[in-house]
Amino acid sequence: MHADILTLFPEMFTGVFDASILKKAYEKEKFSYNLVNFRDYTENKHNKVDDYPYGGGAGMVLTPQPVFDAVEDVTKKSKAKPRVILMCPQGEPYTQKKAEELAEEEHLIFICGHYEGYDERIREHLVTDEISIGDYVLTGGELGAMVVIDSVVRLLPDVLGNKESAPEDSFSTGLLEHPHYTRPADFRGMRVPDILLSGDHAKIDAWRRKESLKRTSERRRDLINEDALSEEERKILNELYNG
Amino acid sequence: MHADILTLFPEMFTGVFDASILKKAYEKEKFSYNLVNFRDYTENKHNKVDDYPYGGGAGMVLTPQPVFDAVEDVTKKSKAKPRVILMCPQGEPYTQKKAEELAEEEHLIFICGHYEGYDERIREHLVTDEISIGDYVLTGGELGAMVVIDSVVRLLPDVLGNKESAPEDSFSTGLLEHPHYTRPADFRGMRVPDILLSGDHAKIDAWRRKESLKRTSERRRDLINEDALSEEERKILNELYNG
Repeated sequence: MHADILTLFPEMFTGVFDASILKKAYEKEKFSYNLVNFRDYTENKHNKVDDYPYGGGAGMVLTPQPVFDAVEDVTKKSKAKPRVILMCPQGEPYTQKKAEELAEEEHLIFICGHYEGYDERIREHLVTDEISIGDYVLTGGELGAMVVIDSVVRLLPDVLGNKESAPEDSFSTGLLEHPHYTRPADFRGMRVPDILLSGDHAKIDAWRRKESLKRTSERRRDLINEDALSEEERKILNELYNG
Repeated sequence: MHADILTLFPEMFTGVFDASILKKAYEKEKFSYNLVNFRDYTENKHNKVDDYPYGGGAGMVLTPQPVFDAVEDVTKKSKAKPRVILMCPQGEPYTQKKAEELAEEEHLIFICGHYEGYDERIREHLVTDEISIGDYVLTGGELGAMVVIDSVVRLLPDVLGNKESAPEDSFSTGLLEHPHYTRPADFRGMRVPDILLSGDHAKIDAWRRKESLKRTSERRRDLINEDALSEEERKILNELYNG
């Protein structure tokens, strides 16, 4: 997979892209990226990328020309038809399902604004996807692009090793994870539940399933898809709701 | 505001913290931070921070000792009682309201895991808040901590300049922003709506309000709090729903 990232702050990405899974994916040639400062595409004398909004009002708006030209330039070199993703608060709320969908693509282009709004013509005529990583206001789209890239690249084949891959990742199962414990069994008087030390794997599995259902029902009832639960799980859930 | 960030990958933060608003806030002495590699607090010979889960299963679990000791160490130096925030998929979904709440604090401590689960005793006895930035799986808590910090620091007094502050930020009003346009009025045949060029500010305001309601009702009906709308806005919304 290749990603082109259009940003006015390319230096923001170095720490994240040089660490951990993204670095590993890059070294294994599963993922490559190109940071594009779209200021380099401006055609005006002062390299201005924004201008006042038509109709008045506070804030500045990113002009269409440098963004269109930068996207067209990086698309020219592409064999696959790229997805052009605008990071913005008005976008579709990002989910694990969307990450899985994007992980099938060969080429992603991210457009990251900073403070400013986007000229609407960018939305209407250039982008294929608008994504919001959550209902909070960030200074720019850069952190959002890093979040999307991290969540997508870890899904690419041969990127995660055994150590990093959690088969019961939250949001793939629809349930939050059960509690985990490791050594010591007694830490400053705080003890690991006896059942986990029992060696009785059937009981441990049942305990974990119940704790997972319990945590999800307490914290995120909205995630539970009752139709996807086994009869036993539905029974446990019923007891939790009515207990 | 001061933030201590416990992470095994402190180098991930450099690009983001050295740019834009976070850099400016740091230079203005509105925000300071300390990256703490909690591996430095391990008491075992090999500086191991994780171990196998009790009860079996894939993946590794962060042991309590280095995390407890690191939090206690950075707390010792603190005048204010810190919020201790665990970044995790099981946490409370992060919102702008939570950002506003955290912006009132003097001292935040972030615990970022990486791949591994957290020993449950960290959750139960050490942290005050568990936060998830969204329903997707990330490689670690670092990006989440950056997202929270960016969204909080931009709310601190005197951090945002006029240029960066958008009074109509999405999620503070409950409505998504209306479309923005800037020069040129005609870009490759794509034209700015005539009304924005009219100079009639009452009409422009009405157009923007309607477009904002329209966008929100099409994309994020879940955000609309009908009680908070004016009678006129409710009327527009009714027409949109029934039109």
